[in-house]
Formats: sequence, C-alpha cells, structure tokens
Amino acid sequence: MTHAVRDFARAEAGIIAGLAECGVATVHEAMGRRGLMSSRMRPIQQDRTIAGSAITVSAAPGDNWMIHVALELAQPGDVLVVAPFSPSDAGYFGDLLAESAQALGVAGLVIDAGVRDVRDLRRMGFPVWSTAVCAWGTVKETPGWVNVPVQCAGAIVNPGDVVVADDDGVVIVPRETAAEALSGARTRIAAEEEKRRALRAGQLSMDLYNLRPGLAAKGFTYR
Amino acid sequence: MTHAVRDFARAEAGIIAGLAECGVATVHEAMGRRGLMSSRMRPIQQDRTIAGSAITVSAAPGDNWMIHVALELAQPGDVLVVAPFSPSDAGYFGDLLAESAQALGVAGLVIDAGVRDVRDLRRMGFPVWSTAVCAWGTVKETPGWVNVPVQCAGAIVNPGDVVVADDDGVVIVPRETAAEALSGARTRIAAEEEKRRALRAGQLSMDLYNLRPGLAAKGFTYR
Amino acid sequence: MTHAVRDFARAEAGIIAGLAECGVATVHEAMGRRGLMSSRMRPIQQDRTIAGSAITVSAAPGDNWMIHVALELAQPGDVLVVAPFSPSDAGYFGDLLAESAQALGVAGLVIDAGVRDVRDLRRMGFPVWSTAVCAWGTVKETPGWVNVPVQCAGAIVNPGDVVVADDDGVVIVPRETAAEALSGARTRIAAEEEKRRALRAGQLSMDLYNLRPGLAAKGFTYR
Amino acid sequence: MTHAVRDFARAEAGIIAGLAECGVATVHEAMGRRGLMSSRMRPIQQDRTIAGSAITVSAAPGDNWMIHVALELAQPGDVLVVAPFSPSDAGYFGDLLAESAQALGVAGLVIDAGVRDVRDLRRMGFPVWSTAVCAWGTVKETPGWVNVPVQCAGAIVNPGDVVVADDDGVVIVPRETAAEALSGARTRIAAEEEKRRALRAGQLSMDLYNLRPGLAAKGFTYR
Amino acid sequence: MTHAVRDFARAEAGIIAGLAECGVATVHEAMGRRGLMSSRMRPIQQDRTIAGSAITVSAAPGDNWMIHVALELAQPGDVLVVAPFSPSDAGYFGDLLAESAQALGVAGLVIDAGVRDVRDLRRMGFPVWSTAVCAWGTVKETPGWVNVPVQCAGAIVNPGDVVVADDDGVVIVPRETAAEALSGARTRIAAEEEKRRALRAGQLSMDLYNLRPGLAAKGFTYR
Amino acid sequence: MTHAVRDFARAEAGIIAGLAECGVATVHEAMGRRGLMSSRMRPIQQDRTIAGSAITVSAAPGDNWMIHVALELAQPGDVLVVAPFSPSDAGYFGDLLAESAQALGVAGLVIDAGVRDVRDLRRMGFPVWSTAVCAWGTVKETPGWVNVPVQCAGAIVNPGDVVVADDDGVVIVPRETAAEALSGARTRIAAEEEKRRALRAGQLSMDLYNLRPGLAAKGFTYR
Repeated sequence: MTHAVRDFARAEAGIIAGLAECGVATVHEAMGRRGLMSSRMRPIQQDRTIAGSAITVSAAPGDNWMIHVALELAQPGDVLVVAPFSPSDAGYFGDLLAESAQALGVAGLVIDAGVRDVRDLRRMGFPVWSTAVCAWGTVKETPGWVNVPVQCAGAIVNPGDVVVADDDGVVIVPRETAAEALSGARTRIAAEEEKRRALRAGQLSMDLYNLRPGLAAKGFTYR
Repeated sequence: MTHAVRDFARAEAGIIAGLAECGVATVHEAMGRRGLMSSRMRPIQQDRTIAGSAITVSAAPGDNWMIHVALELAQPGDVLVVAPFSPSDAGYFGDLLAESAQALGVAGLVIDAGVRDVRDLRRMGFPVWSTAVCAWGTVKETPGWVNVPVQCAGAIVNPGDVVVADDDGVVIVPRETAAEALSGARTRIAAEEEKRRALRAGQLSMDLYNLRPGLAAKGFTYR
Repeated sequence: MTHAVRDFARAEAGIIAGLAECGVATVHEAMGRRGLMSSRMRPIQQDRTIAGSAITVSAAPGDNWMIHVALELAQPGDVLVVAPFSPSDAGYFGDLLAESAQALGVAGLVIDAGVRDVRDLRRMGFPVWSTAVCAWGTVKETPGWVNVPVQCAGAIVNPGDVVVADDDGVVIVPRETAAEALSGARTRIAAEEEKRRALRAGQLSMDLYNLRPGLAAKGFTYR
Repeated sequence: MTHAVRDFARAEAGIIAGLAECGVATVHEAMGRRGLMSSRMRPIQQDRTIAGSAITVSAAPGDNWMIHVALELAQPGDVLVVAPFSPSDAGYFGDLLAESAQALGVAGLVIDAGVRDVRDLRRMGFPVWSTAVCAWGTVKETPGWVNVPVQCAGAIVNPGDVVVADDDGVVIVPRETAAEALSGARTRIAAEEEKRRALRAGQLSMDLYNLRPGLAAKGFTYR
Repeated sequence: MTHAVRDFARAEAGIIAGLAECGVATVHEAMGRRGLMSSRMRPIQQDRTIAGSAITVSAAPGDNWMIHVALELAQPGDVLVVAPFSPSDAGYFGDLLAESAQALGVAGLVIDAGVRDVRDLRRMGFPVWSTAVCAWGTVKETPGWVNVPVQCAGAIVNPGDVVVADDDGVVIVPRETAAEALSGARTRIAAEEEKRRALRAGQLSMDLYNLRPGLAAKGFTYR
Repeated sequence: MTHAVRDFARAEAGIIAGLAECGVATVHEAMGRRGLMSSRMRPIQQDRTIAGSAITVSAAPGDNWMIHVALELAQPGDVLVVAPFSPSDAGYFGDLLAESAQALGVAGLVIDAGVRDVRDLRRMGFPVWSTAVCAWGTVKETPGWVNVPVQCAGAIVNPGDVVVADDDGVVIVPRETAAEALSGARTRIAAEEEKRRALRAGQLSMDLYNLRPGLAAKGFTYR
C-alpha cells in the first residue's frame, strides 16, 4: 500500500522564480490568505527566500527512509516537504542528506519535525524550515508515501505545488493557481510601493486607507 | 463602547532614557520583581534596547484596525503595546506599518501576537518584540480600544507606563513609580560593579554574598 | 537532608576534548541514541561546541542558591547542569554569575529553566543552553542538592558524566562509557567521510545505502 | 512594599447571584466580549457555576503564603483569585486550605497555577478552576500582595470585581459595570429563548438571523 | 472567491454505521495508520462514539459565519468538521447552534477551535470533539469556504469523507476507501477476539505474538 | 546492547500498601518534595489510587515492543512505567495489552506517551496515567530496555522503586527510602487531622500556623 509516485506536473520555472521574489506574506495575501503553514515552522537561518516545486513525503514518526526515496525522485529546484504521519521532533535530516540534496540541486527542505547538524547546514548554505532542531536519530524500518497529498504544519501540500519560504515562514501555492497568485502578488507589490512612499513621508494610515468612516459607522469614538 | 483615549500623562524623557540604559533585568529587580512580561515575548532582532511610553492597543483577534488608530495618537518616542483580547498569532504588523511608525518616531512595537516581514523590519532597524512570527493577514472589521489598561503577555499595561525592552524580554514600569524605579536600578548597577570586579578576580560568590551561614542554618551539609 | 557532594570522578580530559570534536549528533548516535536532552533545550548563541564534566544542581523553583554552591565545587572545564525540581522559567543565571563562572574556568551552563542578561553572556563568550530566556529574578530561600543524580530536560545526569553541547542541543555521556562513546563516534565520523564524498559527487543515497531491497521486501512500490 | 489591602467595595449580592444564573458565555457577550480568562483555565469538577467578589492574590512562584492572608480577609461569598507573579504550576491549594475556605464561606477558587488533593476537593464540593493539577508543595518564604489589581490567566482582576465561573471557564466583571452587565445578560437570555424555540423547530439559522444578504454582499457564492 | 459547494457524494449508511461500531483505533489501524487527527482533539463528553459524512468548514479565525452555511447544507447523519484557516480557540459553537444542529439531525461536531456552553451540550447529548473549551464570542464578518478540502487538527478532510469519533479521538476515512476500511476493521476485530481470550487466560503476549525470535535477531538479551 | 533485567529488589508489600493509603501529595511532602512527575501526567479515570513496584520500560518512539517484554517480567502488584527515549504521543497501550496486564495482576500503567481504547480501559477498571490519549498505532521494530533506570515525565525511576498514583498525579519513592517515606507520610497525616478539625471549626490558618510574625519580619503590612 505504501508507495512513491514518480511523475507529477510542476509549475513553470518563471512563475516559481517570480513567487520567490514576492515573498511569503505577499503571496499569502494574493491567494486570499490560504495555504500558510503554522508559525511553529521556523527557518534555521536568516535572510533566505526560496521557492520550488514540492516533493512530498509522508513519513513514519522517527523514520527517515522516505527522504531517501524523495531525493531519488527530485529534480533540480524542487523543495522537499516532509510530514510525519504522527507527531515527531526527531532529527530526520542532517549534513549527509544535505550534501546529497545539494548535489542533486534540491532548493531546500520544509519539515514538520526536527533537523540536526544545523551548524553544518547553515555553513553549507542549504536552507531549511523546520518545527524543531533535535539530534534524535531516526531509523529506516517503516515505509511511507512519497508524492501523495500531505498536510504539513497545517497546510495541505500536493506534489508539484509551489513552496515559498522566507523569514516569515512557508506558504503553499497550488500549482493550478500559481500564475494567478503571482499576478496578484505583483499587483499588490506595485500598489504597496506607492503606499510605502506616502507612509514614509509621514502620512497617517488612517488617512491613506480612509479608515475613519468605517470606524465611525461601527460606533467607535475618541475621548 | 469601543473607543480611543487621546490624552494621558507620560514619564519624563530623562527618566525613560535612564531606564533604557539600565536594561530589563535590572529594572525588574529594582521594581520588586513585578511587571515582567512572559518569556514567550521575544525580540525579532539581537542587541537592541529601547524604552518609551506605552500606547496601548486592545485588538480583536486577527484584526489590526486599532494599530492604525494608535499610530495616529502616538508621539515620538512612544512604544506600541498591542494585545489581542482573544489569543491570536496572526501577523498584525509588517513593513508598511513599520514605515509609518518609523516616520512618526515610534520607538518600537511590543505585541502579544504575530508580526511579518521580519527580514524587512530588521533591515529597517525598527525594533519588535512579539510572541510569534507569522504571515497570516489580518482584517479591519472589529473595533477595539486604544489607550485603555490592557494585559499583554501577562503584564498589566496602562497608557503612559514606561516600556523597557531588550534581549531578555519586556518589563513595564508604572509611570507613577518610574523615577523611583530608575533610582533603584542605578543603585543596583553601582553595587553590582564592585561585585563584578570581585567575581572576575576569582572570589567565590559564596564568600562575597556570605551565603554559608544561611545554608548551615537550614541544615544544608557537605559530604 | 539537602546537601552537596564534594568529590566525584571525572572522565579523562582527552576523552572530553575528543567528544567535543565529534559533536552532539554523532556522539548521540554512537551511544545507541540515548542521553539526549529535549529539543526545548536551546543555545543562546550560535556556532559554539563545548564538552565538560557535569556539576549537577537540583534547585528549588525560582531559587538559585545552589548555583553558588556549585561554583564553589567546580573545577576548570566543568559544565554546570541545573534542573529545578519543579518547572520554572525564572532567570537563574545572569552576567554576575557568568563572570564568576568564567573566572573559575567553568566551560558553560546547561539549565532546564531561564537565564538573563543574554546579550552580556554572548558578549562575554560564556556559552549557555537553556529552556527559556527570562529576566524573572530568583531568591535564595530554599536549599537543594549539588552533585546528586538529576534529570534535566529529559536526560538523567550524574555528577562527572560528560556533557556535550552544540547548536543541535545537549547530550549526556555516562562517565563509565565515555571512552567507548568516543571510539564509536570516531568510527562513525571516519565512515561518514567516505559517504559524504560519494553523496557530494551525486550518488543517490538509495544506492549508497542499498535501500531498495528492504523497501521491496516491505511491499513498497513505485507508480 | 508587599502588603494586603483590607477594605474594598463589593457588588450587591443580588447582582452577583444574577450573574451566576446567566453563566460565563452570556455574561462575556453582554460585556462586549472582554474579561474572559484564557482557555487554559479549567474546572476540576463538572456542572458547577459560581459567582462572587474577587479577593485577589499576587503570589511568588511556588509560594502560598499570601493565600492564608487572603482567607483572613475574605467575606462569605467571596472568590479567591490567585496569580503567581512568575509562571508556576505548583500545587498552591489542597484539602486543608479548602476546609478553611469552606468554613469561612468562601465560594470557590480561581488560580493560574496548580491545585492538589483534587479528589478531596471534589468530594467536599469546594469548586476550583485552575491551570494545572499538581502535587508540588509550596513554601512560605516570600510575601506578595493581597487585594491589589492582578492579571490572572490573561484577565485583569481588581479586588471586588465579580468573578463568574462555570464549565466554560471564568469571566471577570468590573464591579462598576456589574449591574449593566447583568442587565445586558438578561436581555440576551430573553432574546435567545425565542431563537432557541425557532431553531429547535428546525428553522435554519441562515433565515432566522437573515445571513444571506451579508454573504452575498461579500461575494460569497454557492456552487 | 469564497463559496460553498452544495453537492458531494456520501458513503453508504451501512458502511458508516459499521465504522462507528468498530471505533477509532481499529479503523485507524485498518487504514494503514493514516487519517488520525492530533491528540489535541478531545471529546467534551465520555462514552460516545459517532460516525457520519463530513460537512467541511474552512472558517476565518474567531468567525463562525460559515457554520450557519454548513447547517443549511447538512443532511441528517452528517458530521460538521470545522477548521479555522488561522489558529483560534474562540468559542465558535454553543447551545443555540447545537439546538439547530440537533433539530436538523446532524450527528456531531469536530472542531479545531473552541466550543462553549459545554454543560448544555452535554445535557442535550449533542456530541462534540474540540481542541479547546472557550467562551470567547465569534463574529460574522469574513466569509470562508464550505465543503472544500480542509486540514483539521492534522488530518486532511474532504466533504463526504467518513468521520469516526470516540473517546480516543477522531479519524477520517476517505469515502472511496470506506468499504475497504470497514472490511479491514472487521477482520481485525475478529482476529482480536481470539487474542483477547488467550491474554485474559494469562498467556504471555511474547508467546501469543511469537516476539522472541525477532528480538533475538536484533541482539536483544536478558540479564 | 539493548536488554532486559530480570531480577531486582522490591519494597515490602505492607509498605507499598501504606503508601497507597497516604496518597501522592502527602508522600511527596514526606519525601522532601522530590520524585513527582510533571503535571502533564494525567489519569484517564477519576477516584483511583494505586501503588506498586516499578517495572521500567525505555522504548523507541512509536514502538511498543518492550511493553510485551515488561509484561513477561512483571509480578502481581507491579506498575508498568513506560518512557519513550524520544518524545511520542502514539498510543502504545490499548485494550488487548490491558487484558494481559490485568490477567497477570499488574496494578496499573504510567506512561509518558499516549494510550488508546480508553473507554474500554475505564470499563475494565485498569488504571492508567498518561501524557496523551491517542489512537496512533505503534510498531515492533526497535528494541529498547526493560528494568533499567529511566526518566519518565521528569522523574527518575529505578526498577523496584514504589510508584504512587492518584488524581493528583504520580510520585516515585526510591525503594531504599520507602519505609522512611511511609513513616513520614503517616506522621504528616496524623498532624493534619488536628489542623483539619481546627480549620473546619473556623480558626484562621494565619493563627493556626502562627504566620503573622514571619510576615511582619519581612516588612509585610496591611492597609
């Protein structure tokens, strides 16, 4: 019953690169505020933004066997998304797997569990988002699934969905709507630029966004 | 019923600046160990210390409308203190609001919820203490209160209280006792300088603080 | 009933230094995956690895009296291991205690509670692993125990056990098996070096570790 | 500096009794959704509702000395509200204190910490809401404050405020607005009775509350 | 963009009833150990088991508007599955909604958030599984989605999937594999009956399951 | 390296029975407030108190193989103490294992992980203390250790130590000091009886315990 799916569609490279430029918060807004992972998901490094197609892993708790299968099926630019099917903070991924992932062109790792050798990972420049840092070793005893839909830190991820990750966390963009999300995100950025200039010049956001009438209508007063 | 209070008293600028120099741990001790926020409240940057008068915000969960009102009422040097009235880790504050706050001279943000665009915030040098980093967008649907007493991460904050924040967390100094707290903190610092020299020279704290008689009186022994 | 034990055996300095070179994850694996502290135990600094003999402290919640006794009994190179006997995130340890510890040659602190003055501690280069950063002051009212077996963040620690700590967390090596653990860790490192080269060259870990037969035997398939 | 306040105003007994009849959720709604404690605050028993005037206790972590002072100052019908000034889950309150509280007519206990002897407390019928059940003993070493404003599990509590507690948690009603809150709560209950009948008869809440126009106006569709 | 889906397929009533008889743990095992919600999801009552087709709700934090839509679309025997799209422990559901749900024949509620009026809900016999009990009121300001795929407490739920809930928690059975899961669960129950008799008679599970050879093969010894 | 220890000393049956009569809070006090497990350890039933000799299990995360070995080595009256060596809330123990344990005379289970079939366990009257209720199945792939020292929910447990568990939690009494602990606990109970009568009669604990002089000495005042 456990298995790996070899083939799935990916979004266009240009769209993926565009989403990376927009960043997590903007893409999340452009998607109607869906697809964000929990705030438990944190980067182990600062000042890195990545985007890539999701290779999904549904793994047993404390068992990293499926990550090896995922690496075999990954293409350059893909992002590993690993979710144990029961909660675990064991250290599924360390420097040796990072060497392999980096050699294969994998863009990064997003894991709802632990990683280890984080000093080495930072030194190598292999970007990681995880819910724990933990040296607990894992085993290779129980198979799982690779490239099936998974839930990871509260987000549903299908293989081929676009993963965008930066200092704010991780957002998942369904492949089918990636172009639309990019378009929306770019529109937001353009609109924000003008607002940024106004706010930087000292204009009040109460005026810029015209917030007074709505507040008054709800009975809000000043004393 | 929801409203904002325009005016309230602030502590003297000299006292505020003095409290910033003393830092959180020393001020907290000088106040008789009250007013500290929970250790869940963490800085998003390293090596920053601020102090300022509290502008308080009691906001609906996932709704940042009141922050716009607070910015309108803030004076240069004030610190925004934001507390949702039901727990939320949504991202109430990002780079655009930081542009506005910085333009208006706001000294920093303390929030019992999430912030986003943290990479930008760090790059801008706008200091933030929060209980989460999270890109979840907020709405502007439900008014709340500005400049009323709030509880934020376990501390009671009145508008005009002095907020002191550094790498150790955040402490709230009631405006009425700010001068006394500063005086007490400075006394502690002077006393600590001498102890520091003795300890650095290798004297045992057991001797420096004369801890042996108390231990013996409680029946503590060496084996 | 409360007391401190003055004397206990320590591991050889060469073994301790060797374990520090191997790092937490490797030592933990070499020990059969035992002795690791919980992932709640985090460093306050980056890129430091230490090892040393444990001075153990069993302290009352919010009471740091016993740390002073521990400093009196520490030898250069020792590591303080502090565990409250009821959960506490108070700030047991700050810059003054760090001055003393550093003057006495103590190699670092591991504490299942809070520390404060973390900016100073980082500046001084005194390495700390803790489960909280918190300025709450402590008292000196209730004696505890020094150099008795304690449990700290999920690991059992006896005085004289070797503490190894780095960016991945903290592992405890029983003194009696420290030489064996070092030998096993060095064997692992030698074996990993060859694997690292193969993976860096692009070989799949599925092939390098010969993982296919085991997966097939468990009924795992590709689609 | 530590002290107890002997006298403070209480709400009228009739208002307090009325608030108990309305229950936590209704009173909380009638107050504009303020004053609720965190959902960490749980009853140790089922099917009890109480209301009473708050006797507030600000206690050191793991130190129950101030509860004895509070019992001395309590009047029949009062509710003890205990908040450590640093987090603690120690067992501040057990069967002996409950005997005393019950003998003195105290209506119940609300504590942002632990209690013990819970089987006895249930058997005695002394109602308790706490954030932990824990047998850890406490000491009597550090004085605190009795009948000063405290924050307890996220709510600000002044001595004399009305505490309402049931299976849903605990809400604090400021004494000054207690009559207004009761009036609002009774109005809600009357209005709900009619709705309850309609819903029980099978009417859809979409129709009863006329929710369709608002949804359509926001662009919500059916597919 | 926000919308509700009116129609979707449901599993056969007989299969649903059969799954309820088998219970959560057995169904979860029969499905290859997938689909279980997190252990944070707890019943508010004891000794109830339900199964039904999922009506899924993706709601804004602190906003229960979509539950009203879901009730409109529910059929007798369905189970409401409610997941905020950002974490919330507000009280989305109370006695009035329960009256409506019960009148419409809804079998129960599973919610990754709070509920209130729990004493009433228990008295009415309307079964609920939630991740919090909390009286915080909700608003009706932000539309969401009804009957789209959601993730709830770690499980992916599609409308029409079978929800099974008992004292152990909640498991989701995909509609397409519900018959197979029931068949597997019944096979397990039959097999367990015999084992139960042997164990009750005092046979060691080491012998019944023939566990000694496997342990010996892994080098496990007795001392 | 993994192994089970067959033989170890147990405390006398009379002492064990006496400790059960005294209960967790009293025994914990009589031991100088050591040995208590974390408040995360909760009973699945109400109103049960047990005591017995510890059979200790150090198990892999999500792997219950060692519980079968422990049952083989248990004697009537023993209590299973199970601690995964990496955190796990999987359901290690359910109705079949309970049937076996009950048939073998095992007095109960204490586990720093999950259990399942809790309705059945309550119906059978087999008492359990756990840190989670969770149906996640476990495997039998990785051996561990039986009857070695373990840490379980923050307490160090040696095989043969006396486990006392009731509604307040679980305390561990070292076998060597069990007689002394029982004696101390009985002395406390006798002393408490008199206090209980005085408090029930309305005497203030401030007077009964003579607390006023100590408070005055610390500068505590009444206003």
